[in-house]
Amino acid sequence: MSSPTQPAADYIGVDVSGVTLRAALVAHDGRVTERREAALERDNVAVQVARVAAELRDVSPRVAALGVGIPGLVNRETDCVIVSADLPSVVRSDLHAELRRATGLRVELENDANAAAYGEYSVGAGCGSRNMFYVTIGSGIGGALILDGRVWLGTSGFAGEFGHITIDPEGNECSCGNTGCLETYASAPNIVRRTHDRLFRDGTSSLSRLSMNRDFTAADIAREARNGDDFALLMIERTGRFIGTAVAAVINLLNIECIVMGGGVMEAGDLILDPIIREAGRRSFQPSFESAKIVTATLGGDAVSVGAALLARDSAAPA
Amino acid sequence: MSSPTQPAADYIGVDVSGVTLRAALVAHDGRVTERREAALERDNVAVQVARVAAELRDVSPRVAALGVGIPGLVNRETDCVIVSADLPSVVRSDLHAELRRATGLRVELENDANAAAYGEYSVGAGCGSRNMFYVTIGSGIGGALILDGRVWLGTSGFAGEFGHITIDPEGNECSCGNTGCLETYASAPNIVRRTHDRLFRDGTSSLSRLSMNRDFTAADIAREARNGDDFALLMIERTGRFIGTAVAAVINLLNIECIVMGGGVMEAGDLILDPIIREAGRRSFQPSFESAKIVTATLGGDAVSVGAALLARDSAAPA
Repeated sequence: MSSPTQPAADYIGVDVSGVTLRAALVAHDGRVTERREAALERDNVAVQVARVAAELRDVSPRVAALGVGIPGLVNRETDCVIVSADLPSVVRSDLHAELRRATGLRVELENDANAAAYGEYSVGAGCGSRNMFYVTIGSGIGGALILDGRVWLGTSGFAGEFGHITIDPEGNECSCGNTGCLETYASAPNIVRRTHDRLFRDGTSSLSRLSMNRDFTAADIAREARNGDDFALLMIERTGRFIGTAVAAVINLLNIECIVMGGGVMEAGDLILDPIIREAGRRSFQPSFESAKIVTATLGGDAVSVGAALLARDSAAPA
Repeated sequence: MSSPTQPAADYIGVDVSGVTLRAALVAHDGRVTERREAALERDNVAVQVARVAAELRDVSPRVAALGVGIPGLVNRETDCVIVSADLPSVVRSDLHAELRRATGLRVELENDANAAAYGEYSVGAGCGSRNMFYVTIGSGIGGALILDGRVWLGTSGFAGEFGHITIDPEGNECSCGNTGCLETYASAPNIVRRTHDRLFRDGTSSLSRLSMNRDFTAADIAREARNGDDFALLMIERTGRFIGTAVAAVINLLNIECIVMGGGVMEAGDLILDPIIREAGRRSFQPSFESAKIVTATLGGDAVSVGAALLARDSAAPA
C-alpha cells in the first residue's frame, strides 16, 4: 500500500482480444496516462505483452501490476486460459506464468468482456451503479455481469452469454445449433447479411449504389443512416428492436440498475440506442424498467485495457 | 444463540399467498414438525396469522421468530408491504408492526416466490447449490434468484420476473402490455385456453368428451396426459418447450448451478420436465447448460411457509 507521502501506484492493462493489441498505462484513479497499439502477434502474445509492458514501465516507475484481457475463459484457480476460440495460442502456453516471469509483476488475466464491463463499471458509463450488465455488439455479441461491485462469473465462468438468448424461437439457425439467437440478427456481420437480403426491395437506398462498387459494412449502414438514408435507418432501427428484446430479459430477470451498451455497432449512437430502449420498455416488467438506466459505453477502445488494469488494481491481496 | 445444553429454537412460517393460509412449525434444521391450514381471511390477515402463531407456540415453547410469505413486494427498510395485487389489505395495514405487537416475536415478511426459493434452496431441491433460480408455474408465473446463498432482490425488489420474458416477439398480448410473454403460454389458465383453442382439431381427445360436461383445468390436462391421451400429451409437451425457452435465457445470462421448477403445473412431472430440459438444452450456450441442474421442486405446498420460517431463522442479527 502507498503511504500518503508516496505517489499512488500505476497499472498496465493490455487488450489482446482484437487484431490490434491495445495497451494502457492507467493511474490509480483510472485515468489513462499513456497508450500503445500494435498489430497483435497472435502466436507470440506473451513476448509481445511483456515488451509493451516494459515500454510502459519506462514511462512510469510505479507500475504495481499487469492486467490482460483475453478473448477466452480463464480458470480462476489455475490462472490458465482454458478456452479461446479466437486466440488458441494462449490456451497452449501458460501465459500467466510467462508474463509473471518476464515482467516480475503481479499478473491478472481476465475474459475480455468481463474486463470491459469492469472498466465501464469503474470509470465509464456504469460508474456510480453497484449492479450492471455490460453488452458488447460487434463482430460477435458478448455480455458480462457486475453484481455488488464484482464480476459475476457464474458456476463455470460463462455468465453473460447475451448473444445466444433466443429472441425468435423460429428464427435463423445460429452457429451454436440453436435457432433465433440474438447474434443471428444483431452482430455486425448479421446486420450486413440482413441488409443485403432486403436491399433488392429498395433500389433507392444509397446502399444499393454502394454495393455495386464494394461490399459494405455495418459501419457503412450506420453512416448512411446518420446521413438520412431511410432504408439504412430502418435496418438500424430493427436491429435496435432485436437487441431491446434481449435487454428486456436481463431487466426482467435481474432488475438491474444499469445496462451499458458497447461495441462497434453502438457507434450508430442514438439511432440504435433509442429503439433498444423503446423495445426494452415495451417488453420489460414496468417497475424494473423504470429503475434501469440503459446507456452507451463511454470508454470506447480503452474499455478492455482499462478494465484489465483496474481488475489488477482491485484484486491485490489486502496489505 | 442456543448453548449446547439448550434445545435449538423453532420457527414459525406462514404462507398467505393463496386462498388457503398454510402455517408450519419448523425446527432449526428445516424439518416441519406441525402444520395448520385454514381458508385465508383476506381482510383479517394480521389477526389470523397471530392466532395460528399462538396455536403453534402452544405446541413448541421455543419459537424464536415468525416469517410470513406475502404475495407482494416488501420494502426492506421499512418492513412495509408496498405492492400486493393479490392481497391489497396487507398494503393498507402495517402487517409487520401488528404481528410484532400481537406475538412479541421477531417478524420477517418476504415475497412468496422469494420465500419458496429460499425454502427449496435450504432444504428442498436446490439443497447443496450456492446459486439457484426458482420458478413457480401455476395460475401465474413467478421466479426468484438465490446468489451466493442469499435472495437476490435486484435494484427495486423485482428480480426474477420470469413470467414476462418474451418467448415469441409476435405472440399473444399479455396483461402487462407486452406480446409473447411466457405467461401468455404456460400459466395454468393459458394452458387451458390454448388447449380449448386447439381442441376442435382433435375430436378424439378425452378432453373433448370432458369439455362437454364441464370446464377442464390444467390439472385435468396433465392427468389425461398421464393416462396416455395424445392430444393432452402434446399440449403438456409444447408447454414444456415454451418454458424451456425462457429457462435457456436464465442459463445463458447467469450460468446458474440449479434451476428448481415448482408450482401446480409441474405436477405433470417428467411429462413437462423432460421437454423443458430438452428445449433449454437446445437454446442454451452448451457449457452453461452442462453445468446447470434442472429439477422439480420437492417441498410442494410447504415451500413458502418453510422458506419464510428459514428466512426468519437466518436473518437473526448475530448474537
